[in-house]
Amino acid sequence: MEQPDTESITIFLLMLQNQICDALTAIDGRAVFQEDCWQRGSGRGRTRVLRQGKVFEQAGVNFSHVHGNSLPASITTHRLELVGRAYQAMGVSLVMHPENPYVPTSHANIRFFIAEKPGLAPAWWFGGGFDLTPFYGFIEDAIHWHRTAQAVCRPFGVDVYPRYKRWCDNYFFLKHRNEARGIGGLFFDNLTTPNFAQAFSFSRAVGQGYLDAYLPIVERRKFHPWGERERQFQLYRRGRYVEFNLIWDCGTLFGLQTDGRTESILISMPPLARWEYHYEPDPDSPEAVLYRDFLPVRDWLKD
Amino acid sequence: MEQPDTESITIFLLMLQNQICDALTAIDGRAVFQEDCWQRGSGRGRTRVLRQGKVFEQAGVNFSHVHGNSLPASITTHRLELVGRAYQAMGVSLVMHPENPYVPTSHANIRFFIAEKPGLAPAWWFGGGFDLTPFYGFIEDAIHWHRTAQAVCRPFGVDVYPRYKRWCDNYFFLKHRNEARGIGGLFFDNLTTPNFAQAFSFSRAVGQGYLDAYLPIVERRKFHPWGERERQFQLYRRGRYVEFNLIWDCGTLFGLQTDGRTESILISMPPLARWEYHYEPDPDSPEAVLYRDFLPVRDWLKD
Repeated sequence: MEQPDTESITIFLLMLQNQICDALTAIDGRAVFQEDCWQRGSGRGRTRVLRQGKVFEQAGVNFSHVHGNSLPASITTHRLELVGRAYQAMGVSLVMHPENPYVPTSHANIRFFIAEKPGLAPAWWFGGGFDLTPFYGFIEDAIHWHRTAQAVCRPFGVDVYPRYKRWCDNYFFLKHRNEARGIGGLFFDNLTTPNFAQAFSFSRAVGQGYLDAYLPIVERRKFHPWGERERQFQLYRRGRYVEFNLIWDCGTLFGLQTDGRTESILISMPPLARWEYHYEPDPDSPEAVLYRDFLPVRDWLKD
Repeated sequence: MEQPDTESITIFLLMLQNQICDALTAIDGRAVFQEDCWQRGSGRGRTRVLRQGKVFEQAGVNFSHVHGNSLPASITTHRLELVGRAYQAMGVSLVMHPENPYVPTSHANIRFFIAEKPGLAPAWWFGGGFDLTPFYGFIEDAIHWHRTAQAVCRPFGVDVYPRYKRWCDNYFFLKHRNEARGIGGLFFDNLTTPNFAQAFSFSRAVGQGYLDAYLPIVERRKFHPWGERERQFQLYRRGRYVEFNLIWDCGTLFGLQTDGRTESILISMPPLARWEYHYEPDPDSPEAVLYRDFLPVRDWLKD
């Protein structure tokens, strides 16, 4: 069996982090990323955070490469055959929290795992994706986001987009609210097929597709006028983001279970969020439209 | 074996909820509790929320009584012998989020479980406690809080306070931050000894002790002047409260795992919270004192 080329992946991930940070800095136009290179046990990482920008209230873009003696429960619960294996995990993960409530929050992640056991061939796999969380939805933005996702997948087969779109809808779902986190996008995991080169190539395409998917939406909405009402709704909906990440997100759980660097893991938390008991938007208000037209799972590319 | 008297417990819990809400309304002096009586499947509850008071930005006091066909993992992970048992759970649970950062956040809970299986004696137990989460600590408040806890426990044995104080310190701990939630108090679970009457009596004492522990502290601090700096630190520390409740709290997990009423369960969330990457208080600032003198576990009643 071919050996996965972890050095190429590291180089790709570090370049992806650079490329994304450069593009976000340019579109923000005010703030720059602060960088922390860290080491922790046998793990290391490069955390970059931009704060109080013109566009982004906070943007966090993490690279990390960690090692462990035994895969944690967040992985092995779904893959019993890997219990007790030593592992390496490397990835780039990012969350954007824009200031303007008309600009959606977005998240992307590309990750690679290799799990080893003496005497056995190493298990390796890629995972990742990107998903969008609007506060005020725009149909054309949702279509653009999903068209870009579809275009990224197309060279790898016609069934790839629908499969990973569905997986994304299932994954980014708040069961305790019976509510989607946003309008989805792509999510894949345990990817090993058809071979290392192709799986890596697909993961690269997803990583690079993120900017094509997100930047045009930011450009279109960043000057949209907004006021206190929209701000309050944004802060309320950010509460849902917190709930998803702390209750359901496997990546967050993995980080916390493996004694990861908490400040880097929780850079996904919004700078400010609020909760309000039993809030319900007024019927037919712009806030109600999010719940009615955007959060229920739908096929955005259907004619 | 004696049958636990669930009707007496229900009556006690509803009266405790009344008593606590009355006292909080009086000390707040402006806002009143809004009440929602709800039914959900075979469960029911009475959720009370006070908002935008003079003292409390939000206060939530829940009563609930729920039934299920099978105890969830949040319970059975620690008590394998109860897997598959039908259960009833009833309790009062409350979280206070004061507006003034000099008034600490507090939490209390009294709960009773009964788990049944045909042909076997029912298993029942009490649990509960109260704990305090200051933003700016006062030694005399911490001593008062723990003295009250000790006095509540004293009639039930000299070893009761130290045991449940230690359990509280262990329970309300954010492992991913290596940091306590606050200064603790009392926590007990699986209480069946020496018999139903005594266990119930102890649980009543803890429930009623909460007001004796909390109200004098609120009175002492509610007019303490504060400004934007204290507010920002309070919002930051509330982020830790969110993290504890969504990542570690068994009660929250139990509620969400048993498809409970989310709006009632998450009334523990603060009305507003913030996160800040890599925040560290200035050395020797009042904020640093919290981390240095109040969060590390200590014996508050030592001479």
